[in-house]
Amino acid sequence: MPEQTPATALQLRSLVKADHTVELFLETVEVPEPGPGEVVVRVEASPINPSDLGLLLAGADVSAAILSGSADRPVVTAPLSEAAMRAARGRVGIPMPVGNEGAGTVVAAGSSAAARALLGKTIAAAGGAMYAQYRCVDASFCLELPEGTLAVDGASSFVNPMTALGMVETMRLENHVALVHTAAASSLGQMLSRLCIAEQIPLVNIVRRPEQEELLRSAGAAWVCDSTSLAFTDELTAALKATAATLAFDAIGGGRLASQILTCMEAAATAAAGSYSRYGSAVHKQVYIYGSLDRGPTELTRNYGMAWGVGGWLLTPFLQKIGPDGMRRLRGRVAAELTTTFASSYTSQVSLAGALEPGAIADYARQATGSKYLIIPSR
Amino acid sequence: MPEQTPATALQLRSLVKADHTVELFLETVEVPEPGPGEVVVRVEASPINPSDLGLLLAGADVSAAILSGSADRPVVTAPLSEAAMRAARGRVGIPMPVGNEGAGTVVAAGSSAAARALLGKTIAAAGGAMYAQYRCVDASFCLELPEGTLAVDGASSFVNPMTALGMVETMRLENHVALVHTAAASSLGQMLSRLCIAEQIPLVNIVRRPEQEELLRSAGAAWVCDSTSLAFTDELTAALKATAATLAFDAIGGGRLASQILTCMEAAATAAAGSYSRYGSAVHKQVYIYGSLDRGPTELTRNYGMAWGVGGWLLTPFLQKIGPDGMRRLRGRVAAELTTTFASSYTSQVSLAGALEPGAIADYARQATGSKYLIIPSR
Repeated sequence: MPEQTPATALQLRSLVKADHTVELFLETVEVPEPGPGEVVVRVEASPINPSDLGLLLAGADVSAAILSGSADRPVVTAPLSEAAMRAARGRVGIPMPVGNEGAGTVVAAGSSAAARALLGKTIAAAGGAMYAQYRCVDASFCLELPEGTLAVDGASSFVNPMTALGMVETMRLENHVALVHTAAASSLGQMLSRLCIAEQIPLVNIVRRPEQEELLRSAGAAWVCDSTSLAFTDELTAALKATAATLAFDAIGGGRLASQILTCMEAAATAAAGSYSRYGSAVHKQVYIYGSLDRGPTELTRNYGMAWGVGGWLLTPFLQKIGPDGMRRLRGRVAAELTTTFASSYTSQVSLAGALEPGAIADYARQATGSKYLIIPSR
Repeated sequence: MPEQTPATALQLRSLVKADHTVELFLETVEVPEPGPGEVVVRVEASPINPSDLGLLLAGADVSAAILSGSADRPVVTAPLSEAAMRAARGRVGIPMPVGNEGAGTVVAAGSSAAARALLGKTIAAAGGAMYAQYRCVDASFCLELPEGTLAVDGASSFVNPMTALGMVETMRLENHVALVHTAAASSLGQMLSRLCIAEQIPLVNIVRRPEQEELLRSAGAAWVCDSTSLAFTDELTAALKATAATLAFDAIGGGRLASQILTCMEAAATAAAGSYSRYGSAVHKQVYIYGSLDRGPTELTRNYGMAWGVGGWLLTPFLQKIGPDGMRRLRGRVAAELTTTFASSYTSQVSLAGALEPGAIADYARQATGSKYLIIPSR
């Protein structure tokens, strides 16, 4: 028989204030009665993904974060620049819940069959507001994890796995045959590398440090280019010639890397075409920017003919495009390969309060390879 | 009975040489016998369009052009920068014929019915190599001009009219309801403005000088924004709110204008949506770069959410996309409105030799509003 759910529980909130600060704190919120199609999940593990940081930190200068409050109810305050404040103007004064995804146990269910079927099960959900002890979500948002799966292993079963699968699906939908990925040693990058190896899709991994190259190569990656190498553009062009990759997913965003990739794709395509064309190659070359590790401007040199595109890429509209059936297919695959292809690992496990320690914030805000946080709300 | 075609005739050529120069000269070439489906056209008028300048000048520093040769066989030599030389590496040593389009009289025809039907007719063609006294082209490339049309009036019946129509068709194909156009006082821009007025499509014209704003407004344009105005972004945002334009065609390419347009589109979309979304508006915002008046890098600030794209746009792939039927439909419309919607005017008419005068080159290479050259090869 399921345990009693408490009347109230803690939820992490992020509040942008008119005085140009963001305030992070834990709010006591009511645990709602589930509606007919809903379930209440006791959140047992929820990762801090790069895609959570925008909502969580609002672009604040975390090196200037100040801690107040008590040990179990910490309050962190950090200043926002003019630009960050402009970008956040729509959320000033609204304490936003945070946390895209997580996993836990269904402790209460509404009257519908779908909801009742999940009672007592370990599920993963991506409903937002998962940095909380309890979360009421629609049963259809829940992915039932295979018998015996730990919540810790299911916590990251949505954002990174679906993004990696979404990149591969986008490649197929838009008629490309191979992929390029930047910041390729990230959790997502390692997952994409495993997925592409399994699917025999040529993947050109771009990293920024020799040890990241080693990490990916030791896991079987065939193509890894270090953008800090003096021979980077030659090496990238050679990899693009060999793979015929004309689609890149870029997590960096700012600077010249997206443009360099297009330049090298064009060099590879021109070499393949053989003859001169005044407007460049006719092969469409595309870079989708899905992250913003470099928040500076993207600089495009446009020396790659006319058949090119750069644009934003976001998981949610992609999932809307493939529809419920496509999404079910992808989620089923994630569940089946959760501890292999789609496994995540974490360097730090913290409580909700621990996620608000300035030292921890500074660490996860860096988004460095090999540093990945998991929130355990029951701690 | 058709006149005798000469055995040889003059053709303008552009030759990039390994010594980092481009050489422009007139070559004597054989006038071929037309194949079964071909016709020989006596070219009577051919415009110098912005889209001809890349092939013609190869990015040379025309201010340093040196004239040699004779009055009727001039040779112009101009230096190429390292970057221009790199971009032209595929054409070094190959004397390229130039001239995207033109009009003239069919003076010889092959044996096919389609070819024979054009004999003696005034036609427009866009086969390339039109800066020549005679040109042999496939009959299917020819647009028969309405009875009584002068070649001068039909010379620009392809590039600008089809580009303007292509922009409107692209808007419809990609589900936008209004357009933005930069360098909007150009020949093409004035044509697009007339077309959008006729089709009742809201068009936001972006210009760079007050007199260009006046020019467009006096021709009936409802929305004109001067990018040099201090209130530019406010004015542009207001125009985008009023028109709901989410697609721009940009002839400038370099600098921040493309990004500014996306920023203002996002501001307009956010105002329309009303509520805060962490990833920006869900409305897709697109800028197609089809020209390069500013050859510098394109700088994207990416402060417009994730639903945006920037890319190259070129007429030829667009026409391939709409297919022969779509193209026939558009060409028929151009022929019917050649002296109204799709009329072009010229400030200078020059001979083939006259097009090689350094003063003329410096003038048309500036691509200034109100300066447009037409080559009359028979002069």
